[in-house]
Amino acid sequence: MLHLARDSGATLTRQLTDQLRHLITKGRLAPGQRLPSSRQLAQSLALSRNTVSFAIEQLAAEGYLSLAAGRRPVVAAGLSLDRRKMSPRSSRAGSERMVLSSWARSLQRADWPPVHDGRPRPFQPGLADEREFPHDVWSRCLRRAARNAPLRRDRPINHRPLQEALLGHLVVHRGIKAKADQILIVPTAQSGLTLVADALLERGDHAWIESPGYGGANVALHAAGATVSAIPLDAQGMAIISSRKETPRLIFVTPSHQYPTGRLMPIGRRLELLRFAEATGACIIEDDYDGEFHYEARPVAALQGLATSPRVFYLGTFSKATYADIRFGYLVVPEALIEVFERAQRHTGMLTSITMQDALAEFIASGAYLGHIRRMTRLYKSRRDRMLRALAAEAGDRLATEAPAGGMQLLARCSGPVNDRQLSARLLDAGVASRPLSSMMYHRTNEQGLFLGFAAWNEKEIDQAARILGRILR
Amino acid sequence: MLHLARDSGATLTRQLTDQLRHLITKGRLAPGQRLPSSRQLAQSLALSRNTVSFAIEQLAAEGYLSLAAGRRPVVAAGLSLDRRKMSPRSSRAGSERMVLSSWARSLQRADWPPVHDGRPRPFQPGLADEREFPHDVWSRCLRRAARNAPLRRDRPINHRPLQEALLGHLVVHRGIKAKADQILIVPTAQSGLTLVADALLERGDHAWIESPGYGGANVALHAAGATVSAIPLDAQGMAIISSRKETPRLIFVTPSHQYPTGRLMPIGRRLELLRFAEATGACIIEDDYDGEFHYEARPVAALQGLATSPRVFYLGTFSKATYADIRFGYLVVPEALIEVFERAQRHTGMLTSITMQDALAEFIASGAYLGHIRRMTRLYKSRRDRMLRALAAEAGDRLATEAPAGGMQLLARCSGPVNDRQLSARLLDAGVASRPLSSMMYHRTNEQGLFLGFAAWNEKEIDQAARILGRILR
Repeated sequence: MLHLARDSGATLTRQLTDQLRHLITKGRLAPGQRLPSSRQLAQSLALSRNTVSFAIEQLAAEGYLSLAAGRRPVVAAGLSLDRRKMSPRSSRAGSERMVLSSWARSLQRADWPPVHDGRPRPFQPGLADEREFPHDVWSRCLRRAARNAPLRRDRPINHRPLQEALLGHLVVHRGIKAKADQILIVPTAQSGLTLVADALLERGDHAWIESPGYGGANVALHAAGATVSAIPLDAQGMAIISSRKETPRLIFVTPSHQYPTGRLMPIGRRLELLRFAEATGACIIEDDYDGEFHYEARPVAALQGLATSPRVFYLGTFSKATYADIRFGYLVVPEALIEVFERAQRHTGMLTSITMQDALAEFIASGAYLGHIRRMTRLYKSRRDRMLRALAAEAGDRLATEAPAGGMQLLARCSGPVNDRQLSARLLDAGVASRPLSSMMYHRTNEQGLFLGFAAWNEKEIDQAARILGRILR
Repeated sequence: MLHLARDSGATLTRQLTDQLRHLITKGRLAPGQRLPSSRQLAQSLALSRNTVSFAIEQLAAEGYLSLAAGRRPVVAAGLSLDRRKMSPRSSRAGSERMVLSSWARSLQRADWPPVHDGRPRPFQPGLADEREFPHDVWSRCLRRAARNAPLRRDRPINHRPLQEALLGHLVVHRGIKAKADQILIVPTAQSGLTLVADALLERGDHAWIESPGYGGANVALHAAGATVSAIPLDAQGMAIISSRKETPRLIFVTPSHQYPTGRLMPIGRRLELLRFAEATGACIIEDDYDGEFHYEARPVAALQGLATSPRVFYLGTFSKATYADIRFGYLVVPEALIEVFERAQRHTGMLTSITMQDALAEFIASGAYLGHIRRMTRLYKSRRDRMLRALAAEAGDRLATEAPAGGMQLLARCSGPVNDRQLSARLLDAGVASRPLSSMMYHRTNEQGLFLGFAAWNEKEIDQAARILGRILR
C-alpha cells in the first residue's frame, strides 16, 4: 500500500506523511482504525524509527491521527467531505449560488466605474500622459526611500514629511488652510471619498451630487446609504436651490473644473454654496481631481480655504499630476475629526506604503512635482487647443465644445439626435475611447455628448482620433 | 487704496489682482459697484494696459467681476461670507458640531484597532522584525520596477506577474486551489476583509467570529451590518454548534494559528467546518494572517484548498512575511466572483501601485521571498522558545503559556485574579507593549491574559521585557 522511493526528490518522511494522509482522506484507512506502532511500521517499511515518528507526529499535529501515550495511533473520525454523507437539505443549500449583498448587486448594475481593458485608447478620459512623467527622477526618489526604510521604526500611517510637502504645495497653489496632520494619505481619491461618505452619512440622509457629475461620488454616496439628489448645473455650476424640502448632509462638488463640463465655479457661487452649507449644517466634499492644471487664469482658491467653519473635506489625487499608476489620493479633514478619520482609515485598511509616501515627499520637496505640473500645464493646454480645433474641423457641425478652464478632458455635446452610448460603443470598436454624457446624468434630461480626454495624447494621436470620430458621426 | 511695489517678488499683475480681490472680499468695493475702465485704471496706477487687463480678466474668471463688451467691469454680488448676514436659524445650524454617522461613532467606541504611537515597544504583537528583512534585495526590485514603469501601458488593477508569483507560492506552501486571476491585490488584509463583508452581508445577516478573536473582523462584520455571534473556542478551535437557531452567512476563522491563541485547527475540525458551511450555505473567510511561519510541523493545507465548493475567501498579507510597512494584502475569491470583486475593488478605490506589485512579483519570483520566510521561521521559532523560557522564569507562577504552532505572537493567560487591561496599561508605562486578552473576547467570560509578540525582538530585548513583565506582575 505504501511505496517509498529513495530516489525521489521528496524526503522519506514527507513521502510517508503524504501517503498516509492520502489513505486516510480516501477512507482506505477508516476512522477509528488503529495503526501499527511506529516501531512496527519502521520495521515493516524498512525505515528508521525517526522517519516514522516524524510522520506520525506531523499527521497528529494536523489532526489526522490521535495519539495517546503508550498506545498505537488511531485514525481520527470526521475526515470526510463526501457529499453523499450530507443530509438532503445540506446538498440543496450547498448547491445554491452564492448570494451577494444588495451593495454588491448595486455595483454590478452601476454604470461606474467604466472598465477599460487593455491598452489605453486615444481620448480615454482621466489619464495623464505618463510618457512625459520624469520616471528617472521618481525612480531615484523611490530608490532612496527604499534604502532608508530599515532606519525607520516610528511609523504613523500618514507620513509627516509627505503631509508637510503636500501642504506646502496646497497652501501656495490651492489656498488650502490646514495643518499637516489634517492630511490623510489614502490609496486613491475614491477610497477617501468612501471614508467621508461612511463617516458622515446615516442611512436615509440626503446627499447632493452635480448632474452631470462624477459617477464615483454617486456610487459612494449610495453605498453609504444616502438618498442622493442630482442637482442640475447652471452656467456657474451646481444650481443651489435652497427651497428644496430636504437639506443635504453632504454635498459633492468639483468646483475647480466641474466634472465633466470642465467649467470653473466662480467665486460668487462658491460663497453661495458655503453660505448654504453654513446655514443648513451641511458638509461639503470638494473634489479637486485635476486641480493642478489651469489654462486660462490662475485658479480660484479652493472652497476649503474660503470656508469660515470647518465643513469642507478636500479631496485630491496624485494620479493626474504624476501618472495613473501611482495610486495615491489624499483627503484634508477638519481638524476636530483627525482622530476619528485616522481610526476609520486604519479600520478599513486604507493605508499606503511609507516607502512610497517617503519617495513622493522627496519628489515634491525637490521641486520635481511642481516643475512637472508647470510643464504639463503648458503641454496639456496646447493639446486641449489642438483637440478643440481638430473636433471643430472634423465634426464641428455635430459636436459643440467649450474650452475647459483646466484639467485633462473636455465635454463635446451632440447637437443632432444621437444615442451617445451607442456612439461611444461604435467609437470604441474603431479604437477611440470616450464616456457618454448620458451615463453621467443623474437627473432626467435628453442631453447627449461625449466626454473625451486630451491630456495623454500627442498631436498626431489627437488628429487621428478626431478623424475617426468625425467619420463615425457622419 | 492700491499699493503696487515694483521691487516686490510678485508680478504687478498678481499684486493688482490680489489687492482688488481683497477689496472686494472685504466689502470695500461693494457689489454692483462699477470700476473704472482698464484704460483709466492703467493711467491712474501708472501701469501698462496689459497688466490691468490681465488682472481684470483673472478676477472675471474667478467670478469677482462681471464683464460685458464695451462696459466697465462691475463688482459681482453675493461675495460675502459674513455671518451677521445669515439668518438666525443659519448661525445656529452652522455652529453645531459636525455629526458623525453611527458607523464612525461605533469606530470611536471600538477597542480596535489598537493604536501604538511612536516607536514599537518590545512584545508589541503583529510585528515582523524588519531589521532582518533583506532591504537591499527589495530596494533592487523596487528600482527595477520603477525604471520599467514607463514601458507599461496596459494596466489591469491586479498585476498578473504578482498574481502568478503569489499563486505559485500559495499552491505549493498552503495548498490553495485557484487560478491567478482569482487573486486580488489590496492595500491591506483588512481592506480585503471589508470587501468580502460588504459584498456578502446584508443588514441583519448573521456572521460568526471566533472568541477570543481578531478585532478587525469583528468591526468589519459589524460595519457591514451583520449581527455578529461570538463562537467560543474549544481545544480544536471554533466550536461549531450546528444546533444554533440562526445560521451564519459568513464565518471568520484563523485556522493556521488561531488568533490570539496560536493553536492550529486540526484537519477534523477543518472538515467539520467545511461540511457545516456546505450544509448551511455559509461562506468562510479564512484569514491566514501569518500562515507563513510554522514551527512544529508542516502546516495543514488551507481550508480554501480543502473545500469542495467555492465558498472560502482566503485572506493574506505580505506585512508579516516581509515587513509592516509594505502595505499589501491579498484576497483569493471564488472564480465566479472575480468580476464583481474587481468592480468592488475599483469602486472602493482599494488599489495599489503596479510598480510596487511588480517589485514584489520579482522579489517572490527570485526566491528572495521564500528564502526570507525560511530564515525567519528558524529565527522566530528560537525567539518563541526564548520567550516561553523567559516568561516561565520571570512569571511562571502568574502566567500560563502554551507554545503556539506558528506565527509571531503568543497568548499568556493570567492564573491569578488580574485585570488584564490595567496590567497592559501598567506594562506600557514601563515600556512593554501587549494586548489584553479581555479586549479580544466577544462572549461573556472572565479569562484574562496578555497577547505578546516575540518575532520582532532579539533575545536580549525578550529577556529584558520579560523581566519587566515579571516585576510588574509581582
